[in-house]
Amino acid sequence: MDQLSFIKMHGLGNDFVVLDGRSAPIPLSIAEARTLADRHFGIGCDQLIVMEPPTSEGADLFMRIRNPDGGEAEACGNATRCIASLVMNETGRDQVVIQTLAGHLPAETATTGEVTVDMGPANLGWQEIPLAEERDTLHLGIGAGPLQDPVGVNMGNPHAVFFVEDADTIDLATLGPRLEHDPLLPQRANISVLSVTGPDRLRQRVWERGAGITLACGSGACAGAVAAARRGLTGRRVETTMDGGVLTLEWREDGHVLMTGPVATSFRGKVERASLS
Amino acid sequence: MDQLSFIKMHGLGNDFVVLDGRSAPIPLSIAEARTLADRHFGIGCDQLIVMEPPTSEGADLFMRIRNPDGGEAEACGNATRCIASLVMNETGRDQVVIQTLAGHLPAETATTGEVTVDMGPANLGWQEIPLAEERDTLHLGIGAGPLQDPVGVNMGNPHAVFFVEDADTIDLATLGPRLEHDPLLPQRANISVLSVTGPDRLRQRVWERGAGITLACGSGACAGAVAAARRGLTGRRVETTMDGGVLTLEWREDGHVLMTGPVATSFRGKVERASLS
Repeated sequence: MDQLSFIKMHGLGNDFVVLDGRSAPIPLSIAEARTLADRHFGIGCDQLIVMEPPTSEGADLFMRIRNPDGGEAEACGNATRCIASLVMNETGRDQVVIQTLAGHLPAETATTGEVTVDMGPANLGWQEIPLAEERDTLHLGIGAGPLQDPVGVNMGNPHAVFFVEDADTIDLATLGPRLEHDPLLPQRANISVLSVTGPDRLRQRVWERGAGITLACGSGACAGAVAAARRGLTGRRVETTMDGGVLTLEWREDGHVLMTGPVATSFRGKVERASLS
Repeated sequence: MDQLSFIKMHGLGNDFVVLDGRSAPIPLSIAEARTLADRHFGIGCDQLIVMEPPTSEGADLFMRIRNPDGGEAEACGNATRCIASLVMNETGRDQVVIQTLAGHLPAETATTGEVTVDMGPANLGWQEIPLAEERDTLHLGIGAGPLQDPVGVNMGNPHAVFFVEDADTIDLATLGPRLEHDPLLPQRANISVLSVTGPDRLRQRVWERGAGITLACGSGACAGAVAAARRGLTGRRVETTMDGGVLTLEWREDGHVLMTGPVATSFRGKVERASLS
């Protein structure tokens, strides 16, 4: 019987079915990817990760990210931590480079036993967010209800970051989709609400573009930390509490954002290939 | 390392993590049950099933049903089909009796390779539904918007069955919770919308009491078939299409309802006991 072995992992509840296609390719049809990702009929996950041999020098493996709809995603910070941890456990090394469609992402074991990923530079130009017209990205000027005048940050994807007194009281399910489609944001944006809860401590919730409220959005946490530092509300290193757990973010002087957080293996399993289509 | 082996099964997308506690007990704390059932941090399921030795004569095993909140459920038709199929595959038999908190449920292989479960008698007295006052259970007289005057049926749990032209056009997410709490239904009720789509063919959607719209509700399908036969819309044997697939229901002359439908094994896996709490 043709079986697929897999590992189920998560970072702050952002969860992944991981397949190992390094020694032999694992071609997956869109229907098979959908079934694997389905939480009732398959295994269930936010994204399906296939580990493949790297195609460029300096990378340890290529991480292919399939969305539940069968399409491919460019990058995912939580998945990068999971895969980096898996490879570091296998090899005993404490540094790896994960190749993604968005480029090389260096990762290393953090002193706390967590994993740190270099999420690349925060882009702050108005054309880079992108905005529909020239504005100061520190004050986008748009808003709805209690959410007003966000900071714009691009972390490979566009983010609008709103500071509020108490992020937990905001009706993000209503305001998120409205702001996501603001005419100033031609590629739409992930909508974050952020409160400063202590010295260099943040509480953040994210409405993900096209996905809704999620337990944890890695790029959103990076964007939030950059926005808070730009507004002078925190230093360049913060601890951010998302619904699924805590991430540590550092906005390095060279513009790159380092994200540190936990990874976990939920379980290991085998699925009959024939049951997928 | 202490590992729990499990099988993930489903009937029409109503899904279960199945643990085998027949040879050695598997005590699970509420926290462990919750983590196992969590779709992001654990394995994920609608209910957790623990197979245990039977405690009464005539039963092949006891099926313990844990809800995601850690509490116990009395019965579940889709789970009974899954467990019956598993035991029949193990033993080569084509009939088994599953003991549940709701009593003994006989099950057998159906001619089509599906599994048939005797879901017990449909109870039709107004005190049995139960209703807050005496009414004809064929016409409860309550309603909201396009949903009016349902049939009341108790299949171990209370059901109100509304007949409509096209069940797919009904805003069940809005009307379901409103009708669930109608003062006539002191124990609340599962709310079904049902259309007759052909001779002895039904289309049904169910708002489950306290759970919302689900892919398939076994007791709801039984209640729908009984209601349709009582109203003279179908015979006593029907095929019902739920969101998750098709069930065949037969309301036997002795009042028992037989439910026939598919079962599937999604995957098998192992989880570290230590990761659950």
